[in-house]
Amino acid sequence: MGKILMGPKMLPYPRPTLLVGANVDDRPNFMTVAAGGAANVEPPMISVAIQHHRYTHKGIMQNLTFSVNVPSTDLVRETDYCGLVSGSKVDKVKVCQFNVFYGKLKNAPLIEQCPINLECKVVHILDLGSHSLFVGRVEEAHISESCLTGGKPDVNKIKALIYTADPDREYRAFGHVLAKAYSIGQELKARE
Amino acid sequence: MGKILMGPKMLPYPRPTLLVGANVDDRPNFMTVAAGGAANVEPPMISVAIQHHRYTHKGIMQNLTFSVNVPSTDLVRETDYCGLVSGSKVDKVKVCQFNVFYGKLKNAPLIEQCPINLECKVVHILDLGSHSLFVGRVEEAHISESCLTGGKPDVNKIKALIYTADPDREYRAFGHVLAKAYSIGQELKARE
Repeated sequence: MGKILMGPKMLPYPRPTLLVGANVDDRPNFMTVAAGGAANVEPPMISVAIQHHRYTHKGIMQNLTFSVNVPSTDLVRETDYCGLVSGSKVDKVKVCQFNVFYGKLKNAPLIEQCPINLECKVVHILDLGSHSLFVGRVEEAHISESCLTGGKPDVNKIKALIYTADPDREYRAFGHVLAKAYSIGQELKARE
Repeated sequence: MGKILMGPKMLPYPRPTLLVGANVDDRPNFMTVAAGGAANVEPPMISVAIQHHRYTHKGIMQNLTFSVNVPSTDLVRETDYCGLVSGSKVDKVKVCQFNVFYGKLKNAPLIEQCPINLECKVVHILDLGSHSLFVGRVEEAHISESCLTGGKPDVNKIKALIYTADPDREYRAFGHVLAKAYSIGQELKARE
């Protein structure tokens, strides 16, 4: 299998599509983020990477809190919009008709229409170059009742978006189940 | 839309399935990681979260380098296996029949069978509780020639895995395209 060198480059694996929220000058704002992921399990933490000049960056620095809202496939238009325009010029909440609510944290605005909402308190900020990496501890998680099955979150109902950048910049749905995790690998134990 | 409180919890959005590699006591080892993501764009950086007691953690601390290998759907069995057993007890490279190669960094082992291989130098380590968050600068990216279309990486050929934890722990394929990014949101501009 021939390999090609691409230089120093981040390459596509499933990237999330998240709506990161912050109050900026006391008003809720949201931006689309495809850089970040789970950062710790106990206590639960999440990282999001945001360019320094972004309006949401300003809000997170003001309050040291942010929210992570997971949009579903039916919010793909609103989600894309929140990555196209700046909250310094437009009231994205109004344009997207988001119903905003708050939980434990006063300055982490949450979007009712998104099936999952995480309230995060900043515990680390790394200035990495083009972006700040914010690591947030999840203080509370909210889920839409309609996205539970037997009291557990159900990805088939949440319908989160995947962001892909190569070759084209697109949003995708989750695909079919390939295998059970912590299970199919057992087959290789015979080779040990 | 009713919301349910879940307590402090990380909740499912697309999580990647990556094979993180490190030389441990001078021998290549790989573990499956679903926690991490893009951390910075310029220069390109990636984060991976790894429990302190893991064998790979030891290797990363020894050399301050690691690799991120993106497995494709046809490696789902090997990928799951690398999350089930410890390299302190089993030679995973042998069991999985991985062809290991090296690029620029001496101690960042790469898997030929994986379509994408990133060589990373550790630039930050955050001890977050159960996990260390390693932030690595991508020094070089390798891609299998067969996964390029017109010289660009093609997610349709890379066929990366998504990890989902709720309600069941599973690996999934990427699904259908929902919309073009940086495009469909334009429709909302009329509402501004």
